[in-house]
Amino acid sequence: MEISLKELSARLDVPLRGDGGVRVSRIAQLTNADANSLAFLGGSKYRRYLPSTAAGAVILSEADADVARVPVLLSDNPYLTFARAARILHPEPSVVGGVHPTAVVDPAASVDPSAWIGPLSVLEADVWVGPRVFVGPGCILGAGVRVGEDSRLVARVTLCAGTRIGRRALLHPGAVIGRDGFGFARDGERWVRMPQVGCAVLGDDVEIGANTTVDRGAIGDTLIGHGVKLDNHIQIGHNVEIGDNTAMAANTGISGSTRIGRNCTVAGAVGMAGHLEIGDDVHFTGMAMVTRSFLEPGLYSSGIPAMRSADWRRSVARFRQLDELTRRLRHLEACIDTMNDTIGRGDS
Amino acid sequence: MEISLKELSARLDVPLRGDGGVRVSRIAQLTNADANSLAFLGGSKYRRYLPSTAAGAVILSEADADVARVPVLLSDNPYLTFARAARILHPEPSVVGGVHPTAVVDPAASVDPSAWIGPLSVLEADVWVGPRVFVGPGCILGAGVRVGEDSRLVARVTLCAGTRIGRRALLHPGAVIGRDGFGFARDGERWVRMPQVGCAVLGDDVEIGANTTVDRGAIGDTLIGHGVKLDNHIQIGHNVEIGDNTAMAANTGISGSTRIGRNCTVAGAVGMAGHLEIGDDVHFTGMAMVTRSFLEPGLYSSGIPAMRSADWRRSVARFRQLDELTRRLRHLEACIDTMNDTIGRGDS
Amino acid sequence: MEISLKELSARLDVPLRGDGGVRVSRIAQLTNADANSLAFLGGSKYRRYLPSTAAGAVILSEADADVARVPVLLSDNPYLTFARAARILHPEPSVVGGVHPTAVVDPAASVDPSAWIGPLSVLEADVWVGPRVFVGPGCILGAGVRVGEDSRLVARVTLCAGTRIGRRALLHPGAVIGRDGFGFARDGERWVRMPQVGCAVLGDDVEIGANTTVDRGAIGDTLIGHGVKLDNHIQIGHNVEIGDNTAMAANTGISGSTRIGRNCTVAGAVGMAGHLEIGDDVHFTGMAMVTRSFLEPGLYSSGIPAMRSADWRRSVARFRQLDELTRRLRHLEACIDTMNDTIGRGDS
Repeated sequence: MEISLKELSARLDVPLRGDGGVRVSRIAQLTNADANSLAFLGGSKYRRYLPSTAAGAVILSEADADVARVPVLLSDNPYLTFARAARILHPEPSVVGGVHPTAVVDPAASVDPSAWIGPLSVLEADVWVGPRVFVGPGCILGAGVRVGEDSRLVARVTLCAGTRIGRRALLHPGAVIGRDGFGFARDGERWVRMPQVGCAVLGDDVEIGANTTVDRGAIGDTLIGHGVKLDNHIQIGHNVEIGDNTAMAANTGISGSTRIGRNCTVAGAVGMAGHLEIGDDVHFTGMAMVTRSFLEPGLYSSGIPAMRSADWRRSVARFRQLDELTRRLRHLEACIDTMNDTIGRGDS
Repeated sequence: MEISLKELSARLDVPLRGDGGVRVSRIAQLTNADANSLAFLGGSKYRRYLPSTAAGAVILSEADADVARVPVLLSDNPYLTFARAARILHPEPSVVGGVHPTAVVDPAASVDPSAWIGPLSVLEADVWVGPRVFVGPGCILGAGVRVGEDSRLVARVTLCAGTRIGRRALLHPGAVIGRDGFGFARDGERWVRMPQVGCAVLGDDVEIGANTTVDRGAIGDTLIGHGVKLDNHIQIGHNVEIGDNTAMAANTGISGSTRIGRNCTVAGAVGMAGHLEIGDDVHFTGMAMVTRSFLEPGLYSSGIPAMRSADWRRSVARFRQLDELTRRLRHLEACIDTMNDTIGRGDS
Repeated sequence: MEISLKELSARLDVPLRGDGGVRVSRIAQLTNADANSLAFLGGSKYRRYLPSTAAGAVILSEADADVARVPVLLSDNPYLTFARAARILHPEPSVVGGVHPTAVVDPAASVDPSAWIGPLSVLEADVWVGPRVFVGPGCILGAGVRVGEDSRLVARVTLCAGTRIGRRALLHPGAVIGRDGFGFARDGERWVRMPQVGCAVLGDDVEIGANTTVDRGAIGDTLIGHGVKLDNHIQIGHNVEIGDNTAMAANTGISGSTRIGRNCTVAGAVGMAGHLEIGDDVHFTGMAMVTRSFLEPGLYSSGIPAMRSADWRRSVARFRQLDELTRRLRHLEACIDTMNDTIGRGDS
C-alpha cells in the first residue's frame, strides 16, 4: 500500500521531520532501499549506512536524526514503530467469507458467514469457527474444535478434537494441536496407553510455528496463555502450562506437566524435563538443558560451545576424569598443608 | 460411559471395597474429581489429597486403602489399573466401515469393508487396508502400503510407497513413514543420491507421534519392533532397527543403521550417531549425546544442566582449559614429589 | 530394470571383469544378494563377505578385485558408481503430464503440460510449474510459487506464497517452505509481529527432508544454494543463506540471518545461533552448539558424550565447581613457588 509520510506519521503517532508529501509503498533495509521504501535504524551498528541510504524515509531515534539526509520518523523504539509501519504498508489481505466447494464441512459445524474455509479443509461435527477467521487450504478441525475471531490458519493446520483457539491466533502449516499426549502405564514389558481426556486450550494472540505440536492434557488441559509465540518444530507435552507473552524459538521441547511463567523467553533447541516449575521473567539461552525448576527471574544457560574437534576431544577426556582430578587436587592441598607444617617446623 | 463399581471391579479383575452400586462415568484427578469421577492414587506424594477427595471412587494400593473415605478399587499397580479403567470409561469410538466420497482410492487398492477411509485421503495402487482400520482425514497411503487390522491413522498421516504397518498401530497427524533415507555418494563437490530401495516395516501395537519421521531402508528395511512407542518430532534414520517395547520421548533422533534393543527407554531430545549397537534394557536421560555403542543394561546420561549464565560462562571457559589445567596439576604433583624428596633428605 | 553387465559397464563407463552376459535387476548388500543382484564393496570392513557373496556382480576397487569370485565392475569410487548403477536399476518413474481431477488449480496458475499435479493438491493464483515437475498428492503451492523443471514434490509439501524452487529439486512430505519467519518487536510485555516480506529461494538440485521448514526472509530473501541437501526436521530461520553443496543431517536448527558457506557438512541436531558467519568447508559433528562464527575450514565439535549416569553426575558436579577448582589450583601453584623459595633458601 502506498502512503504519504504525513499520513503514516499520523497513523503511527510519531513526529515527522522532512517532506510529508513523500510517499512510500514497501519496507526495505537501509542498504537496499529505494525512493519508495521505508527503512529503519535500530542501533549504532548500522548508523554508517544512514547518510548514503536511498530510502524514501527512515524511522529512527532522535539521537540519530541529524545524520539522515532523507525524511525521518522519530521513535523511542524504532523497531516497534517499523513493525507497525510494515503492517500498514503490507497489510494482511482481509478475509472474504465463504466456504470453498471442495471443503468437507459437517452439517453440525458452525461457521461464521464472515469466515473463510479454504479448499480441501475438513470441519467435523460441532466445530465452531468465529467471525473473520481464515482457514487456509488443507486444514483439519476435529470434532468440537473452536476457533476465535480473526484467527488465521495459514494452511494444513491440524486441530484435534476438542481443541480451543482464542482470538487473533496465527497458526502455521504442519502445526498439530491437541494430539493425545504420550502417557503409558507399564504392564510387564508392555506399554498400556493412558487415555488422554483433556484438551489443548490456546489463549488470544497466540502464534504457533510450522510443524509445532501441542499435546492435549491427560486429565486436565494443556494451557497456552495469551500472546504466547512458538516458533517451528516445538513440542509442548501434555498438561504443560505456559504463561502470557512467553516466547520460544525453534526446536525446543517441553515435557509433560511443566509450568512456565509469564514473559519468559526460551531460545532454540532448549529441552525441559517434566513436572518443573519455571517462574516469570526466566530466560534460557539456546540448547539449555533444563532439569530442575527455576523460580528466580534471570538468564540461565548450559552446554559447551563448539570448538576445534581436536581440542574438544581432549577437554571431554578430562571432563570424564573431573572427579579424579578433584581428588588429586585435594590430595595435593593436603600434601602442601603437611609440608607447610613440616617446613614451618623446620624453620622454627 | 457410565458403569457401576461392581461391574468395573469385575471387568478390571480387582477387589472392590465399598458400595458397588456407585456409578462413575469419567476419570479425574483426586483434587478436581466429582461424584461421577474415578480417580487414582499412584504414590505417597498425593496421599494427602485422599481424605478430602470428592471422587466417586479411587483406585489405590492396599497400603493406602484405610485413608480413603470413598469406595476403592485395590490394585498392586494403581496406574496400570487406572489406565485400563480409563479405556473402559472413555472408549475409542468403534470404526464404522466405509469410504468417504471425497477420498481418492485407486481401483487396485484393497480396503476391508469394516475399515473406514476418511475424507480427502488418498490410497494409491496395491494398498491393503485391514479389518477395522481407521484412516482419518487427509491421509496418504502410497503404492503397496499395508496397514494391519485395528490400526488407527488419526489424520494426515503419510505412508510412503511400500510401508508396512502391523496391527493395532496408532499413528498421529503429520507422521511420515517410509521417506527415502538420507544417503548420498560424493562426486567431487556434488552429492549423488543413493536410491533407497528398502522399506519401513512397523510391528504390532506401535505408536508413532505427531510429525515423527521413519525413513525407509537404503537396501534392507528399517524395522520397528512390536509395542514400540515413539513420541512427537522423532527422526528414525534408514536401516535403524528398534527392539520390542522400546519407547522414545519427543525430539529424539536416531541416525542410520543404529540398532537398539528391547525394552529401552530414550528420553527427549536424545541424539544417536549412526551404526551403533544399543543393547536391551538400556536407558538414556534427556538430551543424551550417544556417540558410541552401549551394550550393558543401565542408565546413561550426558550434557550440562542449566545454571546461571554468569556461572556457566566461567565454567565453560575452564572447560576449554581442562587439558592445560590437568597438565598444571600433574606438574604440581611432580613438584610435590620432588619437594617431599628434598624435605625428606633435609629431614634425614 | 534388468540389464546386462556389458551394458551397465558401458553406461557407467567403468571396466568390467567377468562375463558381460550376466544380467542384474536390483541392488543388494553383499550378504543378502542373489544372482540377480548387484552389490558393492566400499571398504575393507566388508571384504570378508566378498568371497562368499551370491551377488550376480560386485562394484569394487582394483585392490579388491582379486578376492571376488563373481564378475566385477571396477571403480575408484565404488560407492559413487554403485549409486549411479542403483539409479539405472531402480529408475524414478517418469512423469506423465496431467492434472488429477481432484486437484484445485487456480485459473491463473500455469502448469506445463508435461508436469503432473496429483490428487487433492492446491495451486493458487500465479503459480508456475515447469516441465516434467511431479507434484504428489496433497501438496499446497501458494500464490506466486515457482517450481523449476524436473523437480519432485513427493507428497504433502507446502510451499508458501512467493517461494521459488529451482530445477531437479526433491521435496519430501511435510516440508514447509516460505513460512513467515519468527520476528517480533516488543511493545511493553506484548509481542508485535514484524511482517515478513521476503521469500524463500531454493537453487537447483536441492533436497528438503520430511517435515523440514525453511522460513521466508524478513525483508530480503532466505537463500538455499545449488545442491544443498537437508535431512528431516531441520529448521532454517529467516534470511539464512546456505552455500552450494552444503549438507545437513536431521534435527538441526539454523537461527535467523546466519550465513553458511559452500561444501559444509552439519551433522544431526546441531544448533546455530543467529547472525553468524560460517566459512566454506566447515564441518560440525552431531549436537554441536554453534554460538560464534567459524570462518576457518575444519572440524568443530561440542557436547559431552553419554556415560554412566552415576559417573556423569559426579563430573557435572565438578563442572559447576571448575572455576573454584582452578582458583584452588592457582593457589597451590603459588604455595609451591613460595615453598620452593623457602626450601631453596633453606638449602642454601
